[in-house]
Amino acid sequence: MPEIHAARRERLQAVLAASDADAALITSLVNVRYLTGLASSNAALLVPADGQAVLATDSRYALTAQRDCPDLERLIRRAAESALAELASERGLRRLAFEAHEMTVERCHALTSAGELEPRPLGRVVEDLRIVKDPAEIALLTRACAITAEAFDAVAPAIRAGMTESELAVLIDRTMVDAGAEKPAFDTIVASGPNGAVPHHTPSGRAFARGDMITVDCGARYGGYHADMTRTVVLGPPAGWQRDLYALAAAAQRAGIGAARPGATVAEVDAAARDVIAQAGHGEHFSHGLGHGVGLEIHEAPMLGRGRPGRLGDRVPITVEPGIYLPGRGGVRIEDTLVVRSGAAAARDLLTTTTTVTPRELLVL
Amino acid sequence: MPEIHAARRERLQAVLAASDADAALITSLVNVRYLTGLASSNAALLVPADGQAVLATDSRYALTAQRDCPDLERLIRRAAESALAELASERGLRRLAFEAHEMTVERCHALTSAGELEPRPLGRVVEDLRIVKDPAEIALLTRACAITAEAFDAVAPAIRAGMTESELAVLIDRTMVDAGAEKPAFDTIVASGPNGAVPHHTPSGRAFARGDMITVDCGARYGGYHADMTRTVVLGPPAGWQRDLYALAAAAQRAGIGAARPGATVAEVDAAARDVIAQAGHGEHFSHGLGHGVGLEIHEAPMLGRGRPGRLGDRVPITVEPGIYLPGRGGVRIEDTLVVRSGAAAARDLLTTTTTVTPRELLVL
Repeated sequence: MPEIHAARRERLQAVLAASDADAALITSLVNVRYLTGLASSNAALLVPADGQAVLATDSRYALTAQRDCPDLERLIRRAAESALAELASERGLRRLAFEAHEMTVERCHALTSAGELEPRPLGRVVEDLRIVKDPAEIALLTRACAITAEAFDAVAPAIRAGMTESELAVLIDRTMVDAGAEKPAFDTIVASGPNGAVPHHTPSGRAFARGDMITVDCGARYGGYHADMTRTVVLGPPAGWQRDLYALAAAAQRAGIGAARPGATVAEVDAAARDVIAQAGHGEHFSHGLGHGVGLEIHEAPMLGRGRPGRLGDRVPITVEPGIYLPGRGGVRIEDTLVVRSGAAAARDLLTTTTTVTPRELLVL
Repeated sequence: MPEIHAARRERLQAVLAASDADAALITSLVNVRYLTGLASSNAALLVPADGQAVLATDSRYALTAQRDCPDLERLIRRAAESALAELASERGLRRLAFEAHEMTVERCHALTSAGELEPRPLGRVVEDLRIVKDPAEIALLTRACAITAEAFDAVAPAIRAGMTESELAVLIDRTMVDAGAEKPAFDTIVASGPNGAVPHHTPSGRAFARGDMITVDCGARYGGYHADMTRTVVLGPPAGWQRDLYALAAAAQRAGIGAARPGATVAEVDAAARDVIAQAGHGEHFSHGLGHGVGLEIHEAPMLGRGRPGRLGDRVPITVEPGIYLPGRGGVRIEDTLVVRSGAAAARDLLTTTTTVTPRELLVL
């Protein structure tokens, strides 16, 4: 594993070499993990444009850092970030790029008030490097998605009238952990009946009733990687509008997945799905972007939506999650995590494959 | 409830009136919740030194804000924070105090680049207001602590050789949720045998063996309030050093709790417990502060430790958690959440009361 992280740091150094910075101070903990392999709640990384990087963390993580990052110079200090700023100053790395989207005004002031450093924003360089995943990352994400689908399939037959949203959310979370998840990747959403019209509904004590559509948005975290999947089912025979809404969301998702190819702009992919919904007269009822990257964070670059910049590349995991929300009545969302790859689409690209529910047909419980 | 939050905002306004700021822009989501009652993942609050506050949040939280904050002017905008900055500018509230310990350099730049505003750091004013809890907060915290203790008592008899650290952590988390917790207040720690020497050990696949001391650090969240409790037990008859270490931690905790009175400095309270451990020759094995405030965050002001500033007041919930860690051998930590109050100490002040384990005697399983 150290070679993987060394390769990632080299990609950052290539960016730095082409900039006016002497070094980058990485303080986003997720980015530190990406560049070193160390998962720590207190760590920072100094990456010079040329030469060896230095990792700082506190004594709680000293043994882990020694084991996971044997190739890195390591500083064990409680004030990891300021220890590295001092080191940068001592080594003459004055033009220091920092993560302005992560660092607070107060911390930035403390780091730079000594006067030696010339800080400048690094931008989201590491986040951009993280968009294309290496095989080790895709393997972890694949496992996270498999756990998610397996847990949903195990739980789906137990969904019945009288069960509450909260009860189902807890059951799914526990089943994912029993299936090997480190923890749920985010707070599981269960939205039933009229609550289905709220995209980010918090599971409540509402009991399911016959005729409800129930939307479940869940994911497992595994090895630090986040799965994301949504299924909508119906309790009892669906009404015509429910069947139509589901078919529309499914068609939109197929269109979005079909458009998600290397070279496509993220706005095009969003539009491919959105147009299907808009043409059916529900454009105003699809109120969020089509999807997002997943990896060490549940929401990361690239974001798929109207007006978003950028194109998809090879080996980019994303979600495709069109939703249609009818205020007061309910909603449907269908979401899968898949890996955008060069070449023809393959079954392996779709990572969240459930057997109880397929995007093509509404599961009637 | 709206009156409670209005009273909190008035306390902030009293601070602002004595400062050189026209208004405060509150962007810490915990502080927004404290001042308005709204729990949102995207919200901000503009509090003028004089006059009515304005809450901004996005459409997902519009109905909740209407229900919970009927007395507040409300703006429904995706860019909640910048909507309020613009409003401040329009209303001539140019000297705007902001939370420099929370706001990133990038967001601060975006808010102030228009040039109208004169930003200045607010400091941790709201965090300081949060130190003294009102009765509604103490009621929620009391419930969170009762759930925690109840869950521990339910689980303790099931601890046995062969069970792993992770299995016990999962069991405690589930029992807390079944007992009414919203969720665990933090990642539960289970550290057994030599792992007990690591204060923040992550539960592993290590199976318990006879002779192990096992430290469990857990807490429930209820109504947004966080409980924090640690118990150490032993599997089978304890060795002499285990019994001695436990007795020492218990004596240190009694001394710390005894010193935790309104008017005492936080450094004095820390020293009362630390001196007991140091006099027994284990000073170097107690490597962290004695405790911390709890409330809407699991760690909040006041922090109890050497060199920390400030005094305790009436109605201040804190933890008292001395620990002794022997590298390679194991450790003991005993932690309770209690409310510092005026007057004589009362049983109700200790919020985490377990019946299976008491701080005075080591539970042998």
